[in-house]
Amino acid sequence: MNDVKVIEIKKSVFEDNDREADILRDELKRKGIYLLNLMSAPGSGKTTTLIQTINRLKDKIRIAVMEADIDSDVDAVKIQSATGVSSIQLHTGGMCHLDAGMTRQGIDAVVGKFDLIILENVGNLVCPAEFDTGAVRNAMILSVPEGDDKPLKYPLMFSVCDVVVINKIDVLPYFDFDLEKCKEYIRMRNPKAIVLPVCAKTGEGIDAFADWLLAEVRTWQNK
Amino acid sequence: MNDVKVIEIKKSVFEDNDREADILRDELKRKGIYLLNLMSAPGSGKTTTLIQTINRLKDKIRIAVMEADIDSDVDAVKIQSATGVSSIQLHTGGMCHLDAGMTRQGIDAVVGKFDLIILENVGNLVCPAEFDTGAVRNAMILSVPEGDDKPLKYPLMFSVCDVVVINKIDVLPYFDFDLEKCKEYIRMRNPKAIVLPVCAKTGEGIDAFADWLLAEVRTWQNK
Repeated sequence: MNDVKVIEIKKSVFEDNDREADILRDELKRKGIYLLNLMSAPGSGKTTTLIQTINRLKDKIRIAVMEADIDSDVDAVKIQSATGVSSIQLHTGGMCHLDAGMTRQGIDAVVGKFDLIILENVGNLVCPAEFDTGAVRNAMILSVPEGDDKPLKYPLMFSVCDVVVINKIDVLPYFDFDLEKCKEYIRMRNPKAIVLPVCAKTGEGIDAFADWLLAEVRTWQNK
Repeated sequence: MNDVKVIEIKKSVFEDNDREADILRDELKRKGIYLLNLMSAPGSGKTTTLIQTINRLKDKIRIAVMEADIDSDVDAVKIQSATGVSSIQLHTGGMCHLDAGMTRQGIDAVVGKFDLIILENVGNLVCPAEFDTGAVRNAMILSVPEGDDKPLKYPLMFSVCDVVVINKIDVLPYFDFDLEKCKEYIRMRNPKAIVLPVCAKTGEGIDAFADWLLAEVRTWQNK
């Protein structure tokens, strides 16, 4: 059976999201939980990237996934059946992003002890960038078919992300996507961003992302 | 020179967007202007599809384009230099959608007489679907690399669109995208939606979209 828990997220009641995010981060720190906020446009390959990454890490650390979606539960089912890790679906009821209060509702519904909880945010390059979820780090996926100019058009998203995974590099020959130009645009928005080209379908490049994430979790727990 | 007019859109002051949208639509009707609201995720090929479509129609009707974007003006410049039609850039200042009041600010800035004004909305499958812009019709583009499951994950967007253009069909061999399954999912959301597979890069299938749009404009002006 692939039944997953589905949580209907309610609108947050908090006025000061930044403060709520800091409180949540402090709580997670005390519990030794690293929260990663993964963002992207629709269809960039978040779920496939997560499956590849989790399968490389699940024997080393305890992982749970929260899949935010407006309505369906296809992603949570896919993650759970492909990796075996605990996965819950957060229904945002039409809301286009998650803030710290909404993220907390998801975390409260995750049952068990975990080192890493990954939040797959709503597929959207605009609104999710504006809200601190309480995560330790923000990462995003940009896929080759979306075009190398996206850092010019969605500046805030690229500014708030510590890691930019460039997915679907297997189709580079079929698209006008200049990887060097894209890296340059990303650096304009965020000079410190780590850029990792991958192909989630074949697994190429995923080791680098998994290694970065494992080192992050270990540092967070020992700091 | 490729200078385009850039308009900084302000937040709307109207509380009842549906009412404002109806008022705008009535005004456009009296002036004989057909407004099309074109939506999609980032990187689905809105601008390229528009260039191909406009080049098929610009000798038959008078066309202007409003390019909504958070920050840059790359799309408006591209449209104007590739088609020669009047194009203005609307900066939404971080806002993730356009409502009727914001659309009106753009229309007021378009100088000249036009049969068709196309609004290229912010690249986002969530928020733009929630706001009536005052357009006669909504159309959207879904590109093959985004995946055939998008109608399941972004139900409202597919419900409000009269036409779904499926772009980048040239890369169908390289992606797990089932065109028939996708059409079935679209029909679940909107049984009346017209589905048009195209390749904006080569122009394949664009005639059908251009023909539909031309017939729509003529009907609107003669009704």
